[in-house]
Amino acid sequence: MRRVIIDTDTAGDDTQAILLSCLSDRVTVEALTIVAGNVPFEREVENAKYTLDIADSLDVPVYEGARQPLLKEFEHATDIHGEDGLGGDLFPETDVESAAGFGPDEIVDRCRAAPGEITLLCIGPLTNIALAYAREPDLPELVDEVWVMGGNINCEGNVTPAAEFNLWVDPDAARRVFDAFEVTLVDWGVCLRDAVFDSPEFETVSTFDTELASFFESVTEQARAFNSEGSDDPGWTALPDSVTAALLAYPELREAVSTYHVAVDDREGLTRGYTSVDINGVTDGEPNTHVVESVDSDAFQSVMYSLLQSRDPDSGVAE
Amino acid sequence: MRRVIIDTDTAGDDTQAILLSCLSDRVTVEALTIVAGNVPFEREVENAKYTLDIADSLDVPVYEGARQPLLKEFEHATDIHGEDGLGGDLFPETDVESAAGFGPDEIVDRCRAAPGEITLLCIGPLTNIALAYAREPDLPELVDEVWVMGGNINCEGNVTPAAEFNLWVDPDAARRVFDAFEVTLVDWGVCLRDAVFDSPEFETVSTFDTELASFFESVTEQARAFNSEGSDDPGWTALPDSVTAALLAYPELREAVSTYHVAVDDREGLTRGYTSVDINGVTDGEPNTHVVESVDSDAFQSVMYSLLQSRDPDSGVAE
Amino acid sequence: MRRVIIDTDTAGDDTQAILLSCLSDRVTVEALTIVAGNVPFEREVENAKYTLDIADSLDVPVYEGARQPLLKEFEHATDIHGEDGLGGDLFPETDVESAAGFGPDEIVDRCRAAPGEITLLCIGPLTNIALAYAREPDLPELVDEVWVMGGNINCEGNVTPAAEFNLWVDPDAARRVFDAFEVTLVDWGVCLRDAVFDSPEFETVSTFDTELASFFESVTEQARAFNSEGSDDPGWTALPDSVTAALLAYPELREAVSTYHVAVDDREGLTRGYTSVDINGVTDGEPNTHVVESVDSDAFQSVMYSLLQSRDPDSGVAE
Amino acid sequence: MRRVIIDTDTAGDDTQAILLSCLSDRVTVEALTIVAGNVPFEREVENAKYTLDIADSLDVPVYEGARQPLLKEFEHATDIHGEDGLGGDLFPETDVESAAGFGPDEIVDRCRAAPGEITLLCIGPLTNIALAYAREPDLPELVDEVWVMGGNINCEGNVTPAAEFNLWVDPDAARRVFDAFEVTLVDWGVCLRDAVFDSPEFETVSTFDTELASFFESVTEQARAFNSEGSDDPGWTALPDSVTAALLAYPELREAVSTYHVAVDDREGLTRGYTSVDINGVTDGEPNTHVVESVDSDAFQSVMYSLLQSRDPDSGVAE
Ligand SMILES: [Ca+2]
Ligand SMILES: [Ca+2]
Ligand SMILES: [Ca+2]
Ligand SMILES: [Ca+2]
Repeated sequence: MRRVIIDTDTAGDDTQAILLSCLSDRVTVEALTIVAGNVPFEREVENAKYTLDIADSLDVPVYEGARQPLLKEFEHATDIHGEDGLGGDLFPETDVESAAGFGPDEIVDRCRAAPGEITLLCIGPLTNIALAYAREPDLPELVDEVWVMGGNINCEGNVTPAAEFNLWVDPDAARRVFDAFEVTLVDWGVCLRDAVFDSPEFETVSTFDTELASFFESVTEQARAFNSEGSDDPGWTALPDSVTAALLAYPELREAVSTYHVAVDDREGLTRGYTSVDINGVTDGEPNTHVVESVDSDAFQSVMYSLLQSRDPDSGVAE
Repeated sequence: MRRVIIDTDTAGDDTQAILLSCLSDRVTVEALTIVAGNVPFEREVENAKYTLDIADSLDVPVYEGARQPLLKEFEHATDIHGEDGLGGDLFPETDVESAAGFGPDEIVDRCRAAPGEITLLCIGPLTNIALAYAREPDLPELVDEVWVMGGNINCEGNVTPAAEFNLWVDPDAARRVFDAFEVTLVDWGVCLRDAVFDSPEFETVSTFDTELASFFESVTEQARAFNSEGSDDPGWTALPDSVTAALLAYPELREAVSTYHVAVDDREGLTRGYTSVDINGVTDGEPNTHVVESVDSDAFQSVMYSLLQSRDPDSGVAE
Repeated sequence: MRRVIIDTDTAGDDTQAILLSCLSDRVTVEALTIVAGNVPFEREVENAKYTLDIADSLDVPVYEGARQPLLKEFEHATDIHGEDGLGGDLFPETDVESAAGFGPDEIVDRCRAAPGEITLLCIGPLTNIALAYAREPDLPELVDEVWVMGGNINCEGNVTPAAEFNLWVDPDAARRVFDAFEVTLVDWGVCLRDAVFDSPEFETVSTFDTELASFFESVTEQARAFNSEGSDDPGWTALPDSVTAALLAYPELREAVSTYHVAVDDREGLTRGYTSVDINGVTDGEPNTHVVESVDSDAFQSVMYSLLQSRDPDSGVAE
Repeated sequence: MRRVIIDTDTAGDDTQAILLSCLSDRVTVEALTIVAGNVPFEREVENAKYTLDIADSLDVPVYEGARQPLLKEFEHATDIHGEDGLGGDLFPETDVESAAGFGPDEIVDRCRAAPGEITLLCIGPLTNIALAYAREPDLPELVDEVWVMGGNINCEGNVTPAAEFNLWVDPDAARRVFDAFEVTLVDWGVCLRDAVFDSPEFETVSTFDTELASFFESVTEQARAFNSEGSDDPGWTALPDSVTAALLAYPELREAVSTYHVAVDDREGLTRGYTSVDINGVTDGEPNTHVVESVDSDAFQSVMYSLLQSRDPDSGVAE
């Protein structure tokens, strides 16, 4: 059983990644650390707690981390994720207390306490990870694996033509993390190819009539509206964070993984947050990032259905 | 009949673009202007003259232009194109004189003399065009169309992961040209998708037994060797310059053309020469570049066969 | 009495700033935080403890902070400061333990515990301060004052033509600190003008025959050798860190202080760490950095003599 | 007698540099080339012709050059130089025709025709020189000397804190010129130290009662107003262009000249146009720029008085 810390800017699909990880027996979620990203920080914290509550996992501590990127300015993506980051409807407050301690410090302390045992599942901007590394330069040796949802490999970005949201928000942190850690990367492109829920999938989900199915519909509503091309098109949504969580939990979903040198552009301007992936090996950079290039999308769909219908994502993959 | 100036760093596939344009009745080649690029400048000039000789077009004047990029340093790509840029075998010298005058000046003078009548076919780095614009700020209004082979749209570059050769060599010039002119762009990606000659095509060409077929085999030999994956793989080659010439001459080859804002990164570093194409319209940039997104590859093949077999590219397209 | 945390890359002149602050009754040193800079980190930590020992101030806790800049690579300046950063002679180990806790965390915790009471005396690269700010965005309101030795205002830098060491080493942190905090700045230029010890001063110090005088000669030996122009020139040294400590402790030394907008260049390249100071008010930047433009150099000399001769820097300034 | 081409964005002090050069027997002005800079291009051209008229030098051809910087955007400095660049009063049109040919082409052609004989006196942005170099990469060997007024060495700039006008306007061209040519540099700092006319000098000039004195008062009026600190302060002006012309004509004015590596920052942002001068020799850059560090300001004043009083600048320097 993998021990996992989820670093998340909890809004929309982050919630499904948290649910999946909490409800799977393949991984143990040791803690959540919250990072500035999608929506106002306090909403992210509240979203994370609400999600843990739904997962009956309120024993998982929630640590508040960086409230802003390492260096750069940014604005929230509330137009996509809705006011509360769960899709426009305000959920009730949980009254759960945040755990004492700063997110990046907790990452360091927990990895020091169990060297080589903790895997980081990073589904937001990488500020907290960069701050943890600033405190503990040996962190790359102390972690087990580092999974990152981010970047756009030879495809249009989702913030600018050149960049995906998580890497764009804090490109300085991202550059640091890709340089220092052996990352496994799930980029926006593979999510678009292999982790999209469109009308047929939503119709299936609508038949489940469960709390999780209803929650799923609620948190994806805003993204679907954003991707809709008119009033009679219900729209689609990619599930980048949950597919990353699924790929971590279920190795059988990884259809193709290649190892390349990956570099992130940390400069302001046209290419802020751009992901350079040296597929042809023409640069001097060491190939040390494992890029997931293809996902078993049927199996992923099956995992999600099992999660939403029976709170048991593991039953979605064959024994 | 379109009046065309071809701006070229003549080596390899540039020769086929020149041949096609000279031998087609759809366009009149008014002049060649040579720009620093693929191989040493003097070789480019000689290659251009040799190609005109083969096309029986020595009446077309060859003007020497910029011998180096506007600002940046670069090295020649002689490892791909061979010592003489035609594929490793040295062709005899032509003893043709270059025309008097500096390439960019000629572009300006000819466009001033025939406002709205001259189209620029740019199949090398854009240094000459930027220099012409520096001399004549009204050049964008004086030209007819500006066709550019360059850039890599949401695909791996062929020099660095981020950049294609022509834009990488002189990104300052490229940025200037895309900002100031209404460019029609043929990028490296569409060439890889729709303008590749592989073993079957080369087998066909080998049956032609013509001077042009033999010349074609000769000039593509080095590129095929570069793209070969072993001694028993004869390799393939893309034909970016000739497909650009063909698209200009034959509108019927243009299957899909969209207009986007395109910006080129002129900074040194990771993204030198990167092409940002705002497909989703998320930036403030005005959409003023016409991007050829799909080519009728069968028709292009047919044009090339007609060119190589019977010196009559026009017969490759239906009446 | 001002409560002060000294953030230091302890080597050479940092030691005198620590001594002066510990031995003055004008300020109370609450803690030292160590930051990557001049010499290998472990040596800096040891140097700081050795200096506290000499000052009979081993009750001041030493917290270890960032072992590397926020983002950029750098090399140590051991050629100037000697192997141990005190001037080439290795001092005995102190066997003092570092205090538990990460330097930047301590800065945050202590400022939270005493809002508006703690002044930061920053005489190394600004990594720790930027990390503290990353953890606590309200830190600028929680501190009293922030004194920084760094930058070169309209004068040659001491690392590159454009930059001074402290800002050059971690320009990302520096930019962040100048943007977020109301800094009082002592730059390399004012140190060269008003805080240099040359042969006459060293001759005076050599007559004192005290432990501190001997320590001073030892820690400045390497810098003097670096600034010597030949074997018969004993060389000079600037005292940037001690003059900053003195300016903080003794307002009477501040001859001219102006408030300008200051910005630091965080980009790699020619101007990494450059200090832009908008003296003429031509930019939009808010003037919020207090620049010490002139120091009472006689009084500073007097303070240093009193420190070195009688361990009583306060007696160097008139009642 | 030195043969000189003056490259100028004629406004204000450019006129005095032209007058001085035309009326001195030490130099022969072969041509003026006009470059985009201080004021609208057409005004610069007209200003240049008007000045030649006053100098009885209408035989000197005026070539129009670059109407915009190589790559960057900029705005005119009409607030300093007045609407017509001569200080607010509109002078009559001259009806002189511009010579046929593009400025940069003329520079190339004239230098090719007389290798090693022509000196360039550059008192505007360096666009024309960079364009000439783009056409003729051997230009650095074909010119005699290249004198440049520009940059600010370890002093506040006059456009931004980091940059002087001429280098700021076209930093790309400036970088190219300093990299490729062996420049002799007169920076803004030495002009402020040694080439300022303040109230006493203007009082002297006001006693001359000559056409040139009146013209001088007229062209400096706007700059004086800009530098005035109130209604009863008539203000001062630096004479950067005329002191550069004087230094070229009269070697006896050069009190101190050192050779350093100089690099110009061509990036947008904080340090656009910054002049890095490696006085301490800490970079790898080859020292190949001759920096005038001190001027005989009394002799310069004397030259200017002789120019303005008797149209004979040469009589201002001792035989
Ligand atoms: Ca997320
Ligand atoms: Ca080409
Ligand atoms: Ca220090
Ligand atoms: Ca000028």
